[in-house]
Amino acid sequence: MNQIQPTPLTDIEIARAAHPKPIEQIAAALDIPAEAVYRHGPHKAKLAMDFVTTARAERRGKLILVTAISPTPAGEGKTTTTVGLGDALQRIGKRAAICLREPSLGPCFGAKGGAAGGGWAQVVPMDEINLHFTGDFHAIGAANNLLAAMIDNHVYWGNLIDIDPRRVTWKRAMDLNDRALRQIVVGLGNNGAAREDGFDITVASEVMAIFCLATSLDDLKERLGRIVIGETKSRRRVLASELNAHGAMAALLKDALQPNLVQTIEHTPAFVHGGPFANIAHGCNTVLATETALGLADYVVTEAGFGADLGAEKFLDIKCRMAGLAPAASVVVATVRALKMHGGVAKADLAAENVAAVRAGAANLRRHIVNLGKFGLPVVVALNHFTSDTAAEVEAVRAICAELGVAVHLCRHWAEGSIGATDLAEEVVRLADGGTARFKPLYPSEMPLTDKIRTIAREIYGAHDIDVAPAAARKLAVLEADGFGYLPVCMAKTQYSFSTDPGRLGAPEGHVVPVRDIRLSAGAGFVVVLCGDILTMPGLPRHSAAERIGVDAGGHIIGLS
Amino acid sequence: MNQIQPTPLTDIEIARAAHPKPIEQIAAALDIPAEAVYRHGPHKAKLAMDFVTTARAERRGKLILVTAISPTPAGEGKTTTTVGLGDALQRIGKRAAICLREPSLGPCFGAKGGAAGGGWAQVVPMDEINLHFTGDFHAIGAANNLLAAMIDNHVYWGNLIDIDPRRVTWKRAMDLNDRALRQIVVGLGNNGAAREDGFDITVASEVMAIFCLATSLDDLKERLGRIVIGETKSRRRVLASELNAHGAMAALLKDALQPNLVQTIEHTPAFVHGGPFANIAHGCNTVLATETALGLADYVVTEAGFGADLGAEKFLDIKCRMAGLAPAASVVVATVRALKMHGGVAKADLAAENVAAVRAGAANLRRHIVNLGKFGLPVVVALNHFTSDTAAEVEAVRAICAELGVAVHLCRHWAEGSIGATDLAEEVVRLADGGTARFKPLYPSEMPLTDKIRTIAREIYGAHDIDVAPAAARKLAVLEADGFGYLPVCMAKTQYSFSTDPGRLGAPEGHVVPVRDIRLSAGAGFVVVLCGDILTMPGLPRHSAAERIGVDAGGHIIGLS
Repeated sequence: MNQIQPTPLTDIEIARAAHPKPIEQIAAALDIPAEAVYRHGPHKAKLAMDFVTTARAERRGKLILVTAISPTPAGEGKTTTTVGLGDALQRIGKRAAICLREPSLGPCFGAKGGAAGGGWAQVVPMDEINLHFTGDFHAIGAANNLLAAMIDNHVYWGNLIDIDPRRVTWKRAMDLNDRALRQIVVGLGNNGAAREDGFDITVASEVMAIFCLATSLDDLKERLGRIVIGETKSRRRVLASELNAHGAMAALLKDALQPNLVQTIEHTPAFVHGGPFANIAHGCNTVLATETALGLADYVVTEAGFGADLGAEKFLDIKCRMAGLAPAASVVVATVRALKMHGGVAKADLAAENVAAVRAGAANLRRHIVNLGKFGLPVVVALNHFTSDTAAEVEAVRAICAELGVAVHLCRHWAEGSIGATDLAEEVVRLADGGTARFKPLYPSEMPLTDKIRTIAREIYGAHDIDVAPAAARKLAVLEADGFGYLPVCMAKTQYSFSTDPGRLGAPEGHVVPVRDIRLSAGAGFVVVLCGDILTMPGLPRHSAAERIGVDAGGHIIGLS
Repeated sequence: MNQIQPTPLTDIEIARAAHPKPIEQIAAALDIPAEAVYRHGPHKAKLAMDFVTTARAERRGKLILVTAISPTPAGEGKTTTTVGLGDALQRIGKRAAICLREPSLGPCFGAKGGAAGGGWAQVVPMDEINLHFTGDFHAIGAANNLLAAMIDNHVYWGNLIDIDPRRVTWKRAMDLNDRALRQIVVGLGNNGAAREDGFDITVASEVMAIFCLATSLDDLKERLGRIVIGETKSRRRVLASELNAHGAMAALLKDALQPNLVQTIEHTPAFVHGGPFANIAHGCNTVLATETALGLADYVVTEAGFGADLGAEKFLDIKCRMAGLAPAASVVVATVRALKMHGGVAKADLAAENVAAVRAGAANLRRHIVNLGKFGLPVVVALNHFTSDTAAEVEAVRAICAELGVAVHLCRHWAEGSIGATDLAEEVVRLADGGTARFKPLYPSEMPLTDKIRTIAREIYGAHDIDVAPAAARKLAVLEADGFGYLPVCMAKTQYSFSTDPGRLGAPEGHVVPVRDIRLSAGAGFVVVLCGDILTMPGLPRHSAAERIGVDAGGHIIGLS
């Protein structure tokens, strides 16, 4: 994570200096029997599916959602706070676990760096988690690409199903940032039907979304079979099951589907499993990992991608609805720096005190807090501390939260570990044990698709209305007619603004949300609503992290942050 | 493996019924300390690099090469014989280990099926070894593709090095059979310089070849840096190190480089690591795995890809030369069925006795035996038994081998396990302990490249001469002038014939070997010589194994063979 506090150690140096316990010990602390621990080296494990099936049946734990204000280049620290809160819960004597998404190699070698927390709030072994981990994303990519190969192979060998090569919507996938693969032509030479195609980054694939929503290996296989790969020349939808691809895809994913167990620097159990993009997909870790954690721990802290308008809404309306989960409390992560950016301050000027800008930018925080209330969730604000924060700025945030009746806790877990987040942990326990949560999704499943979109736009984004492009409206009508109207919608929108204009920070109102296109993810079980341009294959920056990452003479990974 | 003997159990059923020991026990039998065992579940492990560095320094063991006659659709069973021989050596009381290549997902989902042996001579867990295993091939693909992304990204951001996009020779890689990716155009839209590109199957990539020849992580990184990715507009070779890609590539490969340890059904230690194609690369497992095995066992059995003209020649002239290894004996695997095909019998007629065809086809076997003698290796023939073999046919093989002073042993390890190969094992021990091996490469490093090619063509392929295309001759001259003349050559030729015509079975003579093109693999450290068309990305067949592979209700993989 990018934080500007002075520190003598980088993330990877802190992680390497940690003293992780054998993973069997971490498992034993949650009463996971040794025979259920499928170890990958001393500090990573997968949990046997038989055990997972038993464990997830009993949901004893309380689920805590960590979400955030709309992200800015200043950085908020959502993963770091999830780790710090988990550690702090453990520190105050609670049986806690955290649930995170697995990092993607794309951002790791791109601009963002690793995604295993930061400072003294990290999951370890940080380098192994960031690089390949237990291979889940490669398995997901292979399953995705096997289906793609079987589609083109079917067309090559006579095309019995009469697939229209121009209407194949299934793309290939790779877990890297590779701009040149966004738009390609395949099948040139004497190698089949040449057609336009492209690669998505693996985390943006429907297989990833399915993987994260599946409740068992059987459910996974059925969902894979329901994938729509395109249309026939007579415009009938073609399913992966028609190509007999779903069995082999499930075989490729069988081991990956077992949740991964690691630990934080402070030995809190961490289930790091799955990692769908929060734009094109729902942006939270696997249902199986979350449910397993809930079966084993009393407090389970999990994060959802991007800001609460995207990540939390989808966590609640898609994941919790499908899995029957009900969070007991929510944490909104904010920083003074980010609030100042929402209040109009440029990144270069963030070091200077600016209370007025904090107050102005807090409009963003306020709306996210109000929104979470609409789902029936109690809220606490975690103000992730930077040394440049002034007392007056922090007080301004506190005052705004007080107006809403919401507590705010200054957190120093990045610099101090669990002791820096114990106040937050106490408040989270109070909220979760208070029994005030009355979770309900924002919209009922029976609501028509277009109304679902409008409801989210108005209630969550503060928009005046939606503007559905004619082609998108036709697709919505066809989906309703074909019986897909009961599905939740998965909004694909810029994460930087409540509007579809990434430059409109703060809390814009009265805007119109353009609905550009609609995609059916029948296997995942949602309808993707594209608002504006959504990139599903990032590019590398001019100076990528890949140029700095390497191996030192002692065989240690360097340059990961 | 395809074998027509009647058996009540499939390969995967036999493998699943096996009782593998905990991998720590297998390791302990070779005196590998527990702390060096990086376990992947109960039955797979990687070995810590520190231990590998120590173990490989002392090469106590005798190296046995298993190679074969030119392959036919009848199947020979080279991997199966390697496993069976290893088990039989253990059965007769020897401290033995085997070294195999890792299976690729491409053939696994294509026509060939798995590659972990067959019948009662298999490595286990067969399903896990065939599907992902410890993730090495995905790591190799990711390293390959990161370099590709960094090339296009460099061009996109101003192209300081002045790379000529039309002269980028570095291709992308995927561990699947995907015909549609052979020839593609990337960078369409507003995503950089559109150019022709293609995917190779991962096993055909230079990264795979480098991985298998590297002697340490440092050596790996240096070799990765030496990769030639293409040319500048002024025709200067561009290296991966100029893009600062080799450090991150090494970071991606760090864990993969640790040799994998598994076991056979009969608990013989098996090092299954690396898997380069035997056409475009050298076709044998990693130097690190072979050397580690030699440091721990008294007899190490390893296989080389395809027939002895390709696999054994490259094993000896490339791998053994580079690593300073000297085999003590060699085994040539043959079957009566395959010899009959070399003698002109069609596949449909193989069940009928045909002694004359066996005698005619034995010309192929004879030349391979003579060739191995040119490398100074003692030879024994393993006749892999099929129930359709008649006594007269077997006797014909025996008589031909007797003429050459070579023993032949009828092997039944596929049906019977180790007891079916004890005679072979006794003979191998006799040969290896006899001290008659006088290994020498076929040609000296100082020999000019063109003469190296001609030497192989005449001495090994029985050709009259070579015919070097003008463009290939120019490339050879440039490579000599630029100081690459000392490198060994890596012949890329059809595996089905001593000639470049896959239809010319038996032992063709007096033919001319056309040299179509030349490629420098500067990182791997050899010059690839393309004779005829070489496919580096296979396609799926009309009815692929992928359509049959799946997961049953109990969560077990089915359909793998």
